[in-house]
Amino acid sequence: SRSINLAVIPGDGIGQEVVAQGLKVLSAVLPQDVKLETKEYDFGARRYHATGETLTDADLEQLKQHDAILLGAIGDPSVPSGVLERGFLLKLRFAFDHHVNLRPSKLLPGVETPLAGQPEIDFVVVREGTEGPYTGNGGTIRGGTPHAVATEVSLNTAFGIERVVRDAYARAQARPRKKLALVHKNNVLVHAGHLWTDIFAKVGEEFPDVTTEYMHVDAATIYLVTQPERFDVIVTDNLFGDIITDLAAAISGGIGVAASGNINPSGAFPSMFEPVHGSAPDIAGQGKADPSATVLSVALLLRHLGYEAEAARIEEAVSVDLAERVGASARTTDEIGDALAVRAAG
Amino acid sequence: SRSINLAVIPGDGIGQEVVAQGLKVLSAVLPQDVKLETKEYDFGARRYHATGETLTDADLEQLKQHDAILLGAIGDPSVPSGVLERGFLLKLRFAFDHHVNLRPSKLLPGVETPLAGQPEIDFVVVREGTEGPYTGNGGTIRGGTPHAVATEVSLNTAFGIERVVRDAYARAQARPRKKLALVHKNNVLVHAGHLWTDIFAKVGEEFPDVTTEYMHVDAATIYLVTQPERFDVIVTDNLFGDIITDLAAAISGGIGVAASGNINPSGAFPSMFEPVHGSAPDIAGQGKADPSATVLSVALLLRHLGYEAEAARIEEAVSVDLAERVGASARTTDEIGDALAVRAAG
Ligand SMILES: CC(C)[C@H](C(=O)O)[C@@H](O)C(=O)O
Ligand SMILES: CC(C)[C@H](C(=O)O)[C@@H](O)C(=O)O
Repeated sequence: SRSINLAVIPGDGIGQEVVAQGLKVLSAVLPQDVKLETKEYDFGARRYHATGETLTDADLEQLKQHDAILLGAIGDPSVPSGVLERGFLLKLRFAFDHHVNLRPSKLLPGVETPLAGQPEIDFVVVREGTEGPYTGNGGTIRGGTPHAVATEVSLNTAFGIERVVRDAYARAQARPRKKLALVHKNNVLVHAGHLWTDIFAKVGEEFPDVTTEYMHVDAATIYLVTQPERFDVIVTDNLFGDIITDLAAAISGGIGVAASGNINPSGAFPSMFEPVHGSAPDIAGQGKADPSATVLSVALLLRHLGYEAEAARIEEAVSVDLAERVGASARTTDEIGDALAVRAAG
Repeated sequence: SRSINLAVIPGDGIGQEVVAQGLKVLSAVLPQDVKLETKEYDFGARRYHATGETLTDADLEQLKQHDAILLGAIGDPSVPSGVLERGFLLKLRFAFDHHVNLRPSKLLPGVETPLAGQPEIDFVVVREGTEGPYTGNGGTIRGGTPHAVATEVSLNTAFGIERVVRDAYARAQARPRKKLALVHKNNVLVHAGHLWTDIFAKVGEEFPDVTTEYMHVDAATIYLVTQPERFDVIVTDNLFGDIITDLAAAISGGIGVAASGNINPSGAFPSMFEPVHGSAPDIAGQGKADPSATVLSVALLLRHLGYEAEAARIEEAVSVDLAERVGASARTTDEIGDALAVRAAG
């Protein structure tokens, strides 16, 4: 009989509330014969304040036992900027080699967008997750003096680029339009840029039916707001991916509905699924958070584990629910979760 | 008697056409007693193909003699990506220490924006121009092999950050709303991020009437499309500035109207003014290019040289011209230039 052994990390702020809805919907869609086991972990600001720890080797050993991880949100104003981000989120992405950071953007019917004319938006960003300027390389000399110098080093390897580029080509090939755009800044960041560009061209030979284009990251932000229908699959570096996926979320309904997967396609370590939004401490505990992004992240999780039909049912449920919101009165986090669970159960 | 000794670099593609209009408007607005001398330079793709040169030491010596530089556009598909960008544009910005890269965004009445609801957009980005990931630091080992590694090093100095941050505070203080936002990614790029954040706080003590906020670059892209009215002055690093100013241009009328100044406030070297757009080889020579961005760059140039009234007249002329375009038939580059010259002459 089948089973899913899930690590659940509610985290900080609204994390608890939205993860509860994610689990509700997950239980509702799973076939009878699939045994769902969950184990909750208390990572985040509370644990950091209590113990000074963000993510220990022992924690990683435990998390490794699971089939996948569902995360709510990590981050709190009481913790200095960077501590939880680097000490937990990035540490986990690097430790579990989550090199495919998958961020779909789809503007669903009825959903508000800041763009005029309700454009067609349906693309996926494949953001590299383990290299680039995110490796923590760099340092400061003469800090606090007028002679301070700080560096940040972006590290890029053929190994790391090739695997994420190949993953992106495969995703593009599996979609009807079969289009893939490489986003970088190869006219300025020439070393990393040429490595990305060369590997992009070389791997492309294996996917002759995929149409490709190259775009500078600055130009990409223009096209995202003027011609978002142009995009199908985008592959890009860790930092550029961070920036353009927030913009992508903003134009396709906001971070309230933006899901993401931190995926290790090899399966050597569990993949992690999380909403793109943060912990939103200003609205935490008030039942105001939209759980849709977390519920859609559960769909990505199910698809990753091979439950395609169940993933599609969740996505359909969210789509219908969002369309029905137009003109309707606001519901609580819990009410939206209930509605999605009923609908996705089918 | 007063005089302006201007270096003119039409450059590639539409550069020639738009610079001609810029000069036309410049001549029209200048007071009778100001003697305008111009010298044209042939930098760009043609010269590169003919001589292999992009910008020599002798060129820099000559350019140094001028009061300011007006640039059209540099770049052509016949030249490998990066050669002219790095060999000319960036080389000049670094050689002349253009550390204040000034990019105003204002959505003028009647101008189309991809955003719904015609928001109020009127802010200025002060982009650092001589540091960050733009210094050309980095390299590649084992290129062309599966073991290739490429690095890009972002260099950030207290000296470089402080001067641009102080310039941005002064600009914010001179504006009615007196608001300044620092955009960075200090939760991930902690070394550079902390240096920026610390200096931003420290310099702020000299400007107690300026309201400040810090924003991650990814969040900034969201606010730029959902709440652009939030921004007054933004100060940011070279690469983040590159990215968000293209987005800023896109939401406030497109790169057809986006002007920029590469400024050395000390006056040690001439400052350079250029439209944000590129050479657009696809429409070059057809009279289709909108010269407004170049004409607005001439306004920035005049303001920099102390001709505030003339700068304001140009901006007003462009504003009226853009409003009158609504529903009117298309005009050529030259016709728009003529109309702007007449109107700005007053
Ligand atoms: C919180 C931060 C470290 C993170 C990132 O920069 O990757 C976030 O912005 C994201 O996009 O998941
Ligand atoms: C052409 C390129 C080098 C340049 C930059 O990245 O600064 C351009 O995009 C700009 O914004 O002026």
